[in-house]
Amino acid sequence: MRIKATVSYDGTQFSGYQSQPKMRTVQSEIDKALRKMHKDDSIHSVASGRTDAGVHAWGQVIHFDTPLNLTEDSWLMALNVLLPKDIRILSAHPVSEEFHARYSAKGKTYQYRWTRKPIQSPFERNYSVHLGKWNPDLKRMQEGAVHLLGTHDFTSFCSSQTATSNKVRTIRMLEIEEKNDDLILTIEGDGFLYNMVRTIAGVLYAVGIGWDEPCQVAEILEARDRKRAGKTAPSHGLYLMSVTYGE
Amino acid sequence: MRIKATVSYDGTQFSGYQSQPKMRTVQSEIDKALRKMHKDDSIHSVASGRTDAGVHAWGQVIHFDTPLNLTEDSWLMALNVLLPKDIRILSAHPVSEEFHARYSAKGKTYQYRWTRKPIQSPFERNYSVHLGKWNPDLKRMQEGAVHLLGTHDFTSFCSSQTATSNKVRTIRMLEIEEKNDDLILTIEGDGFLYNMVRTIAGVLYAVGIGWDEPCQVAEILEARDRKRAGKTAPSHGLYLMSVTYGE
Repeated sequence: MRIKATVSYDGTQFSGYQSQPKMRTVQSEIDKALRKMHKDDSIHSVASGRTDAGVHAWGQVIHFDTPLNLTEDSWLMALNVLLPKDIRILSAHPVSEEFHARYSAKGKTYQYRWTRKPIQSPFERNYSVHLGKWNPDLKRMQEGAVHLLGTHDFTSFCSSQTATSNKVRTIRMLEIEEKNDDLILTIEGDGFLYNMVRTIAGVLYAVGIGWDEPCQVAEILEARDRKRAGKTAPSHGLYLMSVTYGE
Repeated sequence: MRIKATVSYDGTQFSGYQSQPKMRTVQSEIDKALRKMHKDDSIHSVASGRTDAGVHAWGQVIHFDTPLNLTEDSWLMALNVLLPKDIRILSAHPVSEEFHARYSAKGKTYQYRWTRKPIQSPFERNYSVHLGKWNPDLKRMQEGAVHLLGTHDFTSFCSSQTATSNKVRTIRMLEIEEKNDDLILTIEGDGFLYNMVRTIAGVLYAVGIGWDEPCQVAEILEARDRKRAGKTAPSHGLYLMSVTYGE
């Protein structure tokens, strides 16, 4: 039986999502819990995609195959007891054998968070990026963001190490709003290239503080050259919010 | 010149407030920053009181003596650059030589936080106590709390290791409220004995879930016996919110 589960994690103390030898990763902790529960070393989970070290998730999605027939409550209880407290399984239910956490995904939503607080709260140090003396202008950022909406080749906005050859992606929504002292970017698209959201956050930040003009976002996009996009924004401001499927 | 400063810290990664050999403590980090800044190994800070390992602070107060005459902005800038990100100095200004962070304190406010969320968010794991299946009744807790208001001998509500001989303290305010999924206890008094707020939280929790009756709080108080009060609530739900002075 195939189970689809939603996972939330605080990325602070992980070397990213994907299993790596000798590193503490989200995947290795989840697979460890599944193996302990099943007393079976071959069981493993598949996620919608990886996240980098320091990146958080509210709603990562995984699937795994199991011979066990349990209620959702039992799955949550068993896995959350075995998992460290910086990973929580939020939901778990059976899906068809055709469901695949990665290949069936129709879209993803990410958020990027900055804070304008004059002094960052010690409680938020790993959960939003402190702007300090820089005060990005919301309207400029929004003007710049417009150029990214729709279907484009995002070569300029992904890591030069990206292996994927097809760099065309569709951004269906890109909003930037102020909430109390926070500046929150929400982006939804069919899929994202490696480092793409953090590069977009970095470019719109540069526009916000006046280093670039809003219209230059279009030029950066057209250049198809990663060097044009400047600095990638820090990982700890980024959250994978949800993954959508054709359900 | 004497400086009074307000300090916020995330207690998660500290072995409490007070300096201890080979341990990471809030005081040792603050004193290290002060010494680096002054290039003087004799400078040290005095706090309103210590907090235990895992206990947080929004508004701890300290004082220190300095030959430097700086603006508040310069103090904040210099100290916050030198301090680790889980400690932030929120304010700093000159006070009279008679001001003493501990002896001049007229009152303190603490909060204790539980969460009723069915599954605790990984982002809150160090910042509130997860109630899980236990659902304390707010009204029962409030009924129990009434007995603690006013001036009493709090022998039953402090660690048996408390060195202080005078265990009479005055609680001026004790409120318990629900906010979204959180249960928040706010307590204000002239001073608190070692482990006193966490013992009160533990007793009111036991009343809330029906292990004790609200009226038994008065009996526990009158017994002047720590054994009567049951389990101390976990440290990571506790916050030192503010310290008041006769200003």
